[in-house]
Amino acid sequence: MKSLGAKTLVYTAPVWIVGSYDAAGKPNGMAVSWGGICCSQPPCLSVALRKATHSYASLDGKGDFTVSVPSETQVVAADYFGIASGRETDKFRDTGLTPAKSALVDAPYVAEFPLVYECRVRHKLEIGLHTLFVGEILDVKVSEAALGADGHPDIEKLRPFVFLAGPRAYHGIGKRLGKAFEIGKKPRG
Amino acid sequence: MKSLGAKTLVYTAPVWIVGSYDAAGKPNGMAVSWGGICCSQPPCLSVALRKATHSYASLDGKGDFTVSVPSETQVVAADYFGIASGRETDKFRDTGLTPAKSALVDAPYVAEFPLVYECRVRHKLEIGLHTLFVGEILDVKVSEAALGADGHPDIEKLRPFVFLAGPRAYHGIGKRLGKAFEIGKKPRG
Repeated sequence: MKSLGAKTLVYTAPVWIVGSYDAAGKPNGMAVSWGGICCSQPPCLSVALRKATHSYASLDGKGDFTVSVPSETQVVAADYFGIASGRETDKFRDTGLTPAKSALVDAPYVAEFPLVYECRVRHKLEIGLHTLFVGEILDVKVSEAALGADGHPDIEKLRPFVFLAGPRAYHGIGKRLGKAFEIGKKPRG
Repeated sequence: MKSLGAKTLVYTAPVWIVGSYDAAGKPNGMAVSWGGICCSQPPCLSVALRKATHSYASLDGKGDFTVSVPSETQVVAADYFGIASGRETDKFRDTGLTPAKSALVDAPYVAEFPLVYECRVRHKLEIGLHTLFVGEILDVKVSEAALGADGHPDIEKLRPFVFLAGPRAYHGIGKRLGKAFEIGKKPRG
């Protein structure tokens, strides 16, 4: 094994757009890859934000936020949400995307993105450069276009993608390898 | 948008094997998908564990652990690490994998897996069914076989995969979509 040092060198990080209203009521979104599900009951997800970001104050104050998950075809807009700052511009206007007001929480989501989590902050943990916000998932919403025949999201229609920290690149989701909690029942095949 | 309820319905969760020694000194590994990077400085990752798991006491007590990331070809063994309990069996023996002792932390990693993080618990946050452990990444190690010509991990050799909570399936990583913090500079193309 070759040592690469103490780094955040991760190869399957999500690309999530955290939506919130700022103090002036302007909708904002920021791309976050330091995040994930962190509890099954109550269902919670976590997102890590730097204090310097415009979104930090919204999550720290109001405590309501959304997570919108982009599809492959929306990767350019998603990347923009990780480049620009809501302090200086309106990223929804710049990308031509629609900030839809959630009916459950006081936060906007990206109306054109196929998968949305509506969340309320339950915990805040200061770690270092980043602060972790744990949000309870109050609802998950999926676009009709991403639904499969069985009423569940269809991965081929959803087409989410991941961020690779090493090459700093986005990659799509590849082929199905097998069913979880099933293929390993005989660990040596 | 169709409401699906309050669920942990995530489509790009990592598949990480958390390695630790139990109170008797037996190496154990458990598959975790509720995890991710959570801070850049100091570099930290988080893993969420249920109190009922055998690994919980190791992380709660000793505080040292590793995360080993399997490759596509190791998906069957990785799944087994999420099915069996270290309280009842030796998952390394059952899978034929090797628990290598870390030189940095008092925890074993999976010697055959291509990517390893060596971590020490810095924070613990009780959320509900799951408790979040934040570990500082002391080092990242990559197998020589997964290195590219430039000395960095090569995604085509690493071949990590993700867990999809909806269909409860594993999927590989797909095609490259573009460079992060670059392709979105002109958000409307």
